[in-house]
Order: sequence, then C-alpha cells, then structure tokens
Amino acid sequence: MISDAGAMESLLMKTAEEQQTSFFKDSSWHNNQESTQNQKLGVGGFVLVHAGAGYHSESKAKEYKHVCKRACQQAVDQLRAGALAVEAVAAALVELEDSPFTNAGLGSNLNLSGEIECDASIMDGKSLHYGAVGAISGIKNPIMVANRLLSEAQKGKLSAGRIPPCFLVGQGAHDWAVSHGVPPCPSEKMATKFSLSAYKRNKRKMELAEKMETGHNQTKKRRQSSGNENGSGCLDTVGAIVVDMQGNVAAAVSSGGLAMKHPGRVGQAAHYGCGCWAENACNMNPYSTAVSTSGCGEHLIRTMLARECSTAMQSEDAHQALLEAMQNKFISSPFLGSEDRVLGGVIVLRCCRFVEPQPSPNIQGALVEFLWSHTTESMCVGYMSAQDSKAKTHISRLPPGTVPGQSLAIEGGVCRLTSTRD
Amino acid sequence: MISDAGAMESLLMKTAEEQQTSFFKDSSWHNNQESTQNQKLGVGGFVLVHAGAGYHSESKAKEYKHVCKRACQQAVDQLRAGALAVEAVAAALVELEDSPFTNAGLGSNLNLSGEIECDASIMDGKSLHYGAVGAISGIKNPIMVANRLLSEAQKGKLSAGRIPPCFLVGQGAHDWAVSHGVPPCPSEKMATKFSLSAYKRNKRKMELAEKMETGHNQTKKRRQSSGNENGSGCLDTVGAIVVDMQGNVAAAVSSGGLAMKHPGRVGQAAHYGCGCWAENACNMNPYSTAVSTSGCGEHLIRTMLARECSTAMQSEDAHQALLEAMQNKFISSPFLGSEDRVLGGVIVLRCCRFVEPQPSPNIQGALVEFLWSHTTESMCVGYMSAQDSKAKTHISRLPPGTVPGQSLAIEGGVCRLTSTRD
Repeated sequence: MISDAGAMESLLMKTAEEQQTSFFKDSSWHNNQESTQNQKLGVGGFVLVHAGAGYHSESKAKEYKHVCKRACQQAVDQLRAGALAVEAVAAALVELEDSPFTNAGLGSNLNLSGEIECDASIMDGKSLHYGAVGAISGIKNPIMVANRLLSEAQKGKLSAGRIPPCFLVGQGAHDWAVSHGVPPCPSEKMATKFSLSAYKRNKRKMELAEKMETGHNQTKKRRQSSGNENGSGCLDTVGAIVVDMQGNVAAAVSSGGLAMKHPGRVGQAAHYGCGCWAENACNMNPYSTAVSTSGCGEHLIRTMLARECSTAMQSEDAHQALLEAMQNKFISSPFLGSEDRVLGGVIVLRCCRFVEPQPSPNIQGALVEFLWSHTTESMCVGYMSAQDSKAKTHISRLPPGTVPGQSLAIEGGVCRLTSTRD
Repeated sequence: MISDAGAMESLLMKTAEEQQTSFFKDSSWHNNQESTQNQKLGVGGFVLVHAGAGYHSESKAKEYKHVCKRACQQAVDQLRAGALAVEAVAAALVELEDSPFTNAGLGSNLNLSGEIECDASIMDGKSLHYGAVGAISGIKNPIMVANRLLSEAQKGKLSAGRIPPCFLVGQGAHDWAVSHGVPPCPSEKMATKFSLSAYKRNKRKMELAEKMETGHNQTKKRRQSSGNENGSGCLDTVGAIVVDMQGNVAAAVSSGGLAMKHPGRVGQAAHYGCGCWAENACNMNPYSTAVSTSGCGEHLIRTMLARECSTAMQSEDAHQALLEAMQNKFISSPFLGSEDRVLGGVIVLRCCRFVEPQPSPNIQGALVEFLWSHTTESMCVGYMSAQDSKAKTHISRLPPGTVPGQSLAIEGGVCRLTSTRD
C-alpha cells in the first residue's frame, strides 16, 4: 500500500501543533447544543465536496475544479444565511448535479437502454434521518427528492398511521417527487453531447467485446475480461459533507451510476450506510462525523464504506484511522475477496468543540479535520469554510507507478471555526 | 424492558450443560473446511424460518405454523441432497412466498395504487455475495431473482469489463429476471381474496382518516395520528437462515412491504445489512452467523438491524448479546429517537465446530445456537435439523400486559450437528 504521505503530513502537522498550543476539546459540546445556540456565535461552517473518484483528465481538470468551487460557494452561501448543515449540503449537491461534466443529474451516464436513471441520498447527522431515491428518471435534481423524503419523514406519520418512506425507486419515486412539487424534466434534456457520445462509444465497445467472445467460441468465458473500461470517467459520482456552526453535520451523494448499467440497477449512492453517512456527536461518540463516497457502487455497497469510515473517525488519529479503514475495510475487505481491483474514494470530516484555554477563554468554536482518500486514479475535491473568501480545489492523484484498485492516496487538512462567548 | 426469560431459560439451559459436559469448541474449524469436507461427514444442517413479526391471530395460527413447517422441510430436503446453505435457504423462501397467508410473493400487501411490489434479498456467508430486488412486480418468487443476481455476480465481470449488479429495482429488475429465465406472473394472480379485501378496508380507513382530519381543519396535524393500524398482519415479511454441514451459513428475506405503501417504496427486505445477513466464521470471527429480520422496514433500515445482530452474535453469550442488541441497537436506538414504538423481529443463528473430548474424540460436528426476538405482538417461527423427522413451530408472543414496540420477547435453543471422523 502506498499513501500520499507527504502532502498529508504538511497539512495535518498543523493539527497536532494547533491542538498542543491553542485549544482543548470540550467533550460536553454535544450535550449542550441548545445553550450553545443561545450564545453569540459567528455565522459559519465548513463544506467539503467531491466530483467523484475515477479518472479526471488534465484537459477537463479545470471544469471539475470549477464546479467544485461553485458547489462550495453554494453551501457557504447557505451557511452564511444561517442554514443548517443539511440544507447547505443539499445546495452543494444541486450545483454538482447541474454540471454537465459530472456523472449526476444532468449529463449522467446512460444505461444499457440509453436512459438516465439516477441514485441519490442525504443524511442529517442531527436527526439521523435519511432519504434516498434509486433508479429515478426525469428529475433534474435527484438530491432534491431525497432531501424532501428526509424532511417529510421528520414530520412523523402519514394519514391512518402509515409510516413515511425513506427510500423510493423508479417510477414511484418520480411520481412522488412530482406530487411533492419537484418539477419533472424531460429525459432528453438530461443527456448531453458528451454523455450521448460516450454511450455510443461504450455500446460499440460492448458489441465488439461480445462479438469477439462469440467469435472465439468463448461465450462462457466472457466474464474473464476485466480491462480498464471502468476507469474512464465512469465512476464520478458527486457528494458533499458539511458542518454548520452549531456543530451539526450532514452528508449527501448523487450518481448517474455505472455507464451501461442494467436498467433498474441501484448503486451505493442510494444505499443507506454506503453512499453517505452523518452522525452528530453523542454520549458514545466524541466527534460529529460525515462521509460521502464515490466509485464502483457494488464495491461500496458490499463494504458499507461510508458507515465504516464514519465509525473509524471516532479513533484518536483521524489520518491513521482513515488509512486503516481504506486498507482493511475496503482494499483488503473480506467482502470483496474475489475482486482484483477495488475502486472507490471517500471524503470525510469530523469535528469537535474547543474552548481556548488561557489567555483567551472567551474564544470558542469547532475544530474540523477533513480528509479524502481514493484507490482510483484520481479524485477531485473542493473545500471552503464560511470564513474563507473562496474555495480551494484539488485533483488528488495516485502516486506515479502505483496500481489503481490496489493502492491509495490520502490527504486532508484542518479548519477552525471560531466565535466569541458572551 | 421485559423479556420472555422463562421460555429462554429452559431452552438455553441445555446449551450451558452440553457445553460443559460433552464438547469443546475448535476455533480452527473455519480454517480447514476443505479438509473437513474430505472427511466422512453426515449429510446435515439446520434451518430456522419466520413468517413475520407482527400480529398472528389465533384463528390463523395453524396456517402460519403449517407454512413454516413446509418451508423447513423444503430446506432440509435440499440439505439432505447435499445442497449448500444458500440453495437451501432459497428453497425455504420459495415455500414461504408461495403461501397466500404471508406478506411475500403471492398474497403480498397491495400498495397505494392497488399493485403488488415486492422486496427480497439473499446473502451467502461463504462468498459474502449478496443479491437483492426492490419494488419488483409480476414475479411470483422475488427471492429467485435475488438468488439469481447473487449467483450471476459470483461468475465475475460482464462483457467489456462491466461489473454485474447486486441490486435491481422496479421494471428493470422484472425485465432482468425474465431475460434470465425467471417466469413472469400476471399481477392479478398474485393478489388473493384476503389481500384485496384488506386493501379495500385499508383504503376506506385512510380516506376516512383524511376526511376527518380535513373536517377538523387539521390537515397540518395529520401526522400526529398513530393508532394501531400497522399492527394487524401488515408486517409479516418472511425469512430463513440456514447452516449446512460444511458450516456455511446463508440468510434470506422477502416481503410485500407495508400495506398502502407508496409505489416505489423499498423496505428493509431489499436493503443490504438490514433485511438479512450471513457471514461464515473467519480469522476475526469465531462464529458463523446468519440473521433475517421482519417488521417496520424504515425502523429496520435505519438501525441496520440484521448486521448489528450478526456482529452481536460474536459475543460470548448469544442470548445476552441478542437481548442487548434488541434493546440498545433497536428499541433504544439513537437512530429511532423520534419513534414511540419500534416494531420488528429477528431470527438469528450462530455455529461453531466442536470435537468431542474423551471418551469419543472421533465424534465431531457443529453446535448451532438459534434465537428469535421481537418487539411486535407476535412472531411465527419454525426450525428443523436435517436429523429431525419434522419441523417444530412456535408462535412467540410478547408477555401479557407489555407494550408492543417498547418491550421484547426472546427465545431460542441449541442443535448439535454430529458426524464421525474417519
């Protein structure tokens, strides 16, 4: 295993240093959010987004970075206006879905029948509610449907004591969305020149592969081909994680799924515990954590990677914990024993409250540690705090000479959200 | 919390006694299954099935028990013929789905539009593969589609390196099934007199509830009604767990979902980690474990109950571990903080190999501990080992005076699968 230790060190060294000199953790934070909210807090928060773990060509790097930047800005605009984490994370996702360059919402991969079917989910770390849609067509922003499911479920039971759904799929999901005011979008408006030409290219490639296999009378051995077909931009699910100034976390993810997937196939983006996870600090957990994943859906489902990473983030050393989780719970997971290449990426954050010791005990806030890690060739991320004037973006790449699906890159940083006590 | 400790004690007392007097655990079993298979083993295995956690009226008790008995027999027939756990568990599910009395396959609950949409999943503890279908219509045995997805995924990649799906929903799932040889079934043949009259009754009840709420000008407060509407036979998902003579475990679950659910709603039965779980013993886990759940899908999803119970089963005391899991990870779960009644049930088993100490070291086999627990009014179970002449069935009920959704019942037993060494 190879990790991009150099970049990480320079970023995370700050964490250790800051922790020693300027603050201490107050583990009671999660127990007194109400009183915290009554104190005079600066309006703030932090967002980390990804435009997928997969392969981001240099030629398109600028576009990917640009959309990450805009998504961060959308979330921060919400946070500055006093929105909760869950609202901010949804705003970031809408921006990511609206980009024709990402494999989510507009411009999603086409399935085997040439249709777009999207998966999306969102989780609110405060209420621990979750909403998801799978294989939904004809909706420009699947995340808005997932978010609406989440907020409807929070209102309690339906008429005659019926339990509201947290996960809807297919035509039913589409109809529910429209009946709840989400505008439908003609499918042909969701495809782009790029997604259509990729579909035609993939279809030819598939037909050729099948013809060759038949030609060699090897239909039964067709499964052995592995190749690099999934490496080229097909895995770029998008996602975001947010912490607001009250310390609430939220996470979301949205995906058009694998190119040439079977109609009705649902990937990790709609799967509880697999696509995203958010959990506020509680008696058992000192940290609030949020995670969003990207990559090969089947690998991310079977390893429940989002929840595994969230659990790992409760360990002392965030960097070490994520490194071990990616290595032991993903690359070497017994659940993927038969896979030769395990493709995926995560963004994670954790935060805890701090109060400055002497000489400035009136300064308090939250320490946010954030990381990304991937086994794919590259992963595009962006991050921004509400105190920043603009987002930072980065295309993380596996170290040269390492093998995608068998090695990983890991990087990150820290951010302090501060305010003054009354 | 009240548990049905009396019944449990009489059954589990045997465990302790047997453990002390007649065998010891051989934790290396999981590492030498190959050599075990080469020894002279009796053909055997064990199956535990459920016909749902919900409410089983005395008047229908006989029918529920009867279908459980037949399902056990189907699994045991498979085991006796040398089938693996995953094949035996699928056979049990087909029988459970085919009963018009259960809420799975034939006779499933109708949704809001009067249609049947089913969820099902299956997991193989040996390969750790999983297959699932959600909101599938027009297929008599959804478990056969889930099982086919599982076995297709085990064959490796599709043409042009595409990753095979593990989870399909809606029309896409139906079409995949038919193209893979699963016969379609006209929807009208899947409804029964009972399910149709229940639909009409529920629809009237819903319309009345909505009219009353509107009449009282309380549309915004409609969510506050809770009532007992989901208590009457609406939660009886079916499931089964199996261990075969090689010590492989498998689990499966199938459901028509909540009555009057929104079209496209997917419940726990299709959700990885929530509906069923099976995991063979490995270096980290001394026990092979299998779990199948039933109850309110949203509660079972948000608590990932199947996987939580599987993890708990690695503890020393199976009974105590399940009791704590049901109490802390389900009834009092922080993920269901806003729910006043948490409705569900599980069947679990774990097994480990044993070798008889002196004076009969030539006798070896597996010790299977099995349990069921539920917070619903009742749960119908059946179990049988391949050495038994017929299945035992039981309708477990909450102790009188306890509140469904807040209390639990727990019972179980042990079974030894023995054979003679060469």
